[in-house]
Amino acid sequence: MAEDLALMDEDQVHADRVAAILQAVDANDATRLTELLEPLHAADIADLLEQIGAGDRRALLGLWSGEVDGEILSEIDESIREEVIESLPREVVAEAMRELDSDDVVDILEDLDPPQQGLILDALEDADRVAVEAALAFPEDSAGRLMQREVVVAPEHWTVGEAIDYLRQAEHLPDQFYHVILTDPRMKPTGYVTLGRLLSSRRDMRLKEILEDSFRTVPATETEADVAYMFNQYHLISTPVVDANGRLVGVITIDDAMNVLDEEHEQDMLRLAGVGDDSSLSDGAFATARQRLPWLVVNLFTASISAFVISRFESTIASLVTLAALMPIVASTGGIAGTQSLAVAVRALATRSLTSANAKRVVLRELVGGLLNGVGLAVILGLGGFLIFGDWKLGLVLGMAMITNQLVAALGGVLVPLGLHRLKLDPALASGTFVTTLTDVLGYLAFLGLASLVLL
Amino acid sequence: MAEDLALMDEDQVHADRVAAILQAVDANDATRLTELLEPLHAADIADLLEQIGAGDRRALLGLWSGEVDGEILSEIDESIREEVIESLPREVVAEAMRELDSDDVVDILEDLDPPQQGLILDALEDADRVAVEAALAFPEDSAGRLMQREVVVAPEHWTVGEAIDYLRQAEHLPDQFYHVILTDPRMKPTGYVTLGRLLSSRRDMRLKEILEDSFRTVPATETEADVAYMFNQYHLISTPVVDANGRLVGVITIDDAMNVLDEEHEQDMLRLAGVGDDSSLSDGAFATARQRLPWLVVNLFTASISAFVISRFESTIASLVTLAALMPIVASTGGIAGTQSLAVAVRALATRSLTSANAKRVVLRELVGGLLNGVGLAVILGLGGFLIFGDWKLGLVLGMAMITNQLVAALGGVLVPLGLHRLKLDPALASGTFVTTLTDVLGYLAFLGLASLVLL
Repeated sequence: MAEDLALMDEDQVHADRVAAILQAVDANDATRLTELLEPLHAADIADLLEQIGAGDRRALLGLWSGEVDGEILSEIDESIREEVIESLPREVVAEAMRELDSDDVVDILEDLDPPQQGLILDALEDADRVAVEAALAFPEDSAGRLMQREVVVAPEHWTVGEAIDYLRQAEHLPDQFYHVILTDPRMKPTGYVTLGRLLSSRRDMRLKEILEDSFRTVPATETEADVAYMFNQYHLISTPVVDANGRLVGVITIDDAMNVLDEEHEQDMLRLAGVGDDSSLSDGAFATARQRLPWLVVNLFTASISAFVISRFESTIASLVTLAALMPIVASTGGIAGTQSLAVAVRALATRSLTSANAKRVVLRELVGGLLNGVGLAVILGLGGFLIFGDWKLGLVLGMAMITNQLVAALGGVLVPLGLHRLKLDPALASGTFVTTLTDVLGYLAFLGLASLVLL
Repeated sequence: MAEDLALMDEDQVHADRVAAILQAVDANDATRLTELLEPLHAADIADLLEQIGAGDRRALLGLWSGEVDGEILSEIDESIREEVIESLPREVVAEAMRELDSDDVVDILEDLDPPQQGLILDALEDADRVAVEAALAFPEDSAGRLMQREVVVAPEHWTVGEAIDYLRQAEHLPDQFYHVILTDPRMKPTGYVTLGRLLSSRRDMRLKEILEDSFRTVPATETEADVAYMFNQYHLISTPVVDANGRLVGVITIDDAMNVLDEEHEQDMLRLAGVGDDSSLSDGAFATARQRLPWLVVNLFTASISAFVISRFESTIASLVTLAALMPIVASTGGIAGTQSLAVAVRALATRSLTSANAKRVVLRELVGGLLNGVGLAVILGLGGFLIFGDWKLGLVLGMAMITNQLVAALGGVLVPLGLHRLKLDPALASGTFVTTLTDVLGYLAFLGLASLVLL
């Protein structure tokens, strides 16, 4: 059996499991449903809820509501979380929230409507509610929202033995922690010790002597994107968060940073393609259409600029209709080159490889690279044009327009995101439309303009 | 001073630092150079080496070669690593390699040419060389290459006290470890205990009683992409790697998984834009041009299909030249819609949100969403066409072509990546070109075809 499974496609196994679960839901068979769901990880149950249709989801939750716990709610995608929470009995939600660490409750709360937020806050114990409300006071997408408030600290003068004895007696330790943070008497973090180091050092060793080099703190107001970058760049595993006075207020762990990194990626990729940020696979057709319509409408207007440019050359086209057939080649190859240059620049800005220190060199490189490819493509296209139409002037126009547009694409692809970045805007946002408009308009202009000069 | 710095743009600080460093290099001032570089993290020094030009890099390394250590070499981007290693004295490289953990040496070695690999292998101590060669025997991009071989294990029957005593006596513990892995007598891992749990439990507690639920193992032949997904999905911090017989051979930690996730994302984004995988910001103009040329040439040919389609309608265009100006509107709006749909599908496949279980629903959603936006855009464009040209038939043709092409875009954007995925190919690879060719060709065909039917 196990071998059979290993041989089967993983995706097929998953599809079969979903089918069996939906069958149990249809049959109203709660026992069978629990049998099938119980062995799954909360993250996989959450994925499953996202993948089935809204009707099935309601039926499943109706049959299984008692078993939905905090971990599942915390794993579930924002796009359906509100719907799921509304469909659950209030006491199930309250119980689920009480199981979670404060940072997970904050993560759930911040996306809910105020009435739902109120219900959940009321369900929390006093201490937890205070912690959650304090976190919500920090700006959205800040380190203060991301951190957990449960920290493990020790005074700077302690020895390894004292720290271990303290940990062994402590009643409430966080579920996950990787460092003991040293603080001065005013609660300012001054260093940290890894648990591995603590375990392998002599009891009389002073904590101060086994501090890690990697230590750095994060202000609570730092953006989560900057925090994620820092974790990835410096291979951090957890890092203390401090308030405006430098006092320890919480700690961020790498699993949260990894999650942020993943979301930032998603945002870059979707924004670059002109898709709204909160798009999700569980959205319906209406929501999907609404998220994508804005950039389509923008494109409708920018494409009209191209149309206007072309319309200025109607007499040129009328005297040589072949031009109409050939003009999209130059424009579309420019579009591809612009997209290439743009993707490289957006990625480089996100990883901070593209800075003021090397911007000039990168722009120059794109320009020379664009020229090289422009010449290469011009030779292929120009020769092709000459061979097919037997007109060397037409080949020349095609080639020259291609070189011009490759240069425009290379420059636009890097200058547009650099400009947006300098204006403190997201370089991924809108730059795709800017760049393709540029390559379209100038592609048509170069080709038809040169054609009217050289051919007519 | 500190406040001044905080007020200044971070990017400006970085640019100033780079300028100061290059000045020291120009002045041949090794002392000043060391003063400037010493306080920086190895990852930042590596970034700096990538950001400066090849000539400056050579000069800097010439002046500072003695200080380049294993960590810097390990942080440096593949694109310039070979160049950097070649420019360093052999004994500096050998010394740097001896400082590193086996997984970092493997990471460096796998991208080098065989002669350089040999030099480095020779420089390692016997035990390390055996470990590195064993790792290189695993397939590229597999868990076996990613793992570190240094593991911390304990027999299943040990108590907390026995484990702590063992750790305190152990001579060589890994730099970073987060779990003590329990193994049976045949070295098969059966569970793990976090260091936090170990520190906070009574000495007489059996390790078996404080195992973590999150425990799972990874076969050494698993792809690193699957490993990264697993870490992100299940919030793992480290996970044991086993050989074909289920025996423990190493451990993968979350910082490596985060790195892989980041690289996978880069790959998706660049491939989707038609850029070669090993592109890097430190590549020269020639390398850049060469990486991007293949898809440009492919696009040149696919665009020729559009040109051919248009040429079939030359007589239609000749009788109404305005059509030539309007036709790119339909094609380009389709291109945007296709790109949107494609980005969502590629991302969903990468995060495994799009599976056989919901593929049908997602395709249907895209189709209905495409229809909705098609109708919306058709109304705007059709009305605009009617108002500008005073010809309701032209408005009708524009609108109908728009609806057709939005449907094609929506379907192509999701079916092309799904098809590539089913064929076990990377859904990001080549799908951009496929989809825009589809929307271009069918956009022109629909518009000109309808025009010749309705208008002439």
